Amino acid sequence: MFISFEGTEGVGKTTLIRRIYEHFQAQGSEVVLTREPGGTPMAEQIRSLLLSVNHDEQMCNDTELLLMYAARAQHLAQVILPALAAGKTVLCDRFTDASFAYQCAGRGLSREKLQLLNQNFVSHMPALTFWLDAPIELGMSRARERGALDRFEQEKVTFFEKVRAGYQELWQAEPERIKRLDATQSPDLVFAEALKYLQTVAA
Amino acid sequence: MFISFEGTEGVGKTTLIRRIYEHFQAQGSEVVLTREPGGTPMAEQIRSLLLSVNHDEQMCNDTELLLMYAARAQHLAQVILPALAAGKTVLCDRFTDASFAYQCAGRGLSREKLQLLNQNFVSHMPALTFWLDAPIELGMSRARERGALDRFEQEKVTFFEKVRAGYQELWQAEPERIKRLDATQSPDLVFAEALKYLQTVAA
Repeated sequence: MFISFEGTEGVGKTTLIRRIYEHFQAQGSEVVLTREPGGTPMAEQIRSLLLSVNHDEQMCNDTELLLMYAARAQHLAQVILPALAAGKTVLCDRFTDASFAYQCAGRGLSREKLQLLNQNFVSHMPALTFWLDAPIELGMSRARERGALDRFEQEKVTFFEKVRAGYQELWQAEPERIKRLDATQSPDLVFAEALKYLQTVAA
Repeated sequence: MFISFEGTEGVGKTTLIRRIYEHFQAQGSEVVLTREPGGTPMAEQIRSLLLSVNHDEQMCNDTELLLMYAARAQHLAQVILPALAAGKTVLCDRFTDASFAYQCAGRGLSREKLQLLNQNFVSHMPALTFWLDAPIELGMSRARERGALDRFEQEKVTFFEKVRAGYQELWQAEPERIKRLDATQSPDLVFAEALKYLQTVAA
């Protein structure tokens, strides 16, 4: 099973993914924990380009979107598809929904462009997606506590409000695949809620 | 005017571009000399990813194509379009035709994918394209003399034969835009022939 985790900065994705990873391991399941952009050494190099703060040259929106999909193509071919073919469970920190939320809803890039890239360069979608949702200010203060902010984390609150609205739109359009988790709850409660969804899907 | 230069390795693109650059400068024209993949510091970083030889991880075809277009989007937005808007002449070492020749004809990637990327991410095409054509072996021996070969230059002769056939196909489809130059001739003769075409277009 292919499961992705989505949400704005500081909503607790990393904590939840790790607990679900340990849960699968404890069950004796083979599970791969990976992330986007990145997931292979080459895709992680693309991630560095995407996240690094460059004061001399602004990355244009098309470049950002195409770099995301270049990293995704490599990640799918090298990690996700082989793992799924071997019967493993793949837990992925962000996938195509993040491109919609950040690049389309956040930056205003055309949805048609994203759709074309999804149709032509993404052969496999997650069976289940957890959207960790929390007010932007809560997540931002957690992200700031973690230290230096990357190029995305340096965006303004209004940008993240748009990203959050983008996730909400996706969730409303695909409630079967995307499950909203209230990320203002304690990590224990978030994990318990996620487990319930997992058991429903596995049943 | 936007002019691109195409051809396989070692056919003399760099020499011709430099002479045409000097020709425009001598005429008092403002001219920008640039190249793909690359042309901006960020796009040059993408170029490094594309050309570097990595024995641990093979770059998949979709990744290669998307990285090319990510670099192109940045190059167009930051260099080519502003220069053209300022009335300058842009001389570009490789452009979309190279993606067709290398990724589609060479690697066998679908032409539909390329067309989608061209339609959605390339807002401006060259008015004139010089295709420097020569037998593959001739160019390869020149490329080998230059020293260490990059990821593309390390490909086999059969790959470059397909790339050359791809350029030929484009030339036959768009004879108005693409001018074939016989690159087995001396650099002086190649330059003289290119000048003739330039004068026709300028007239």
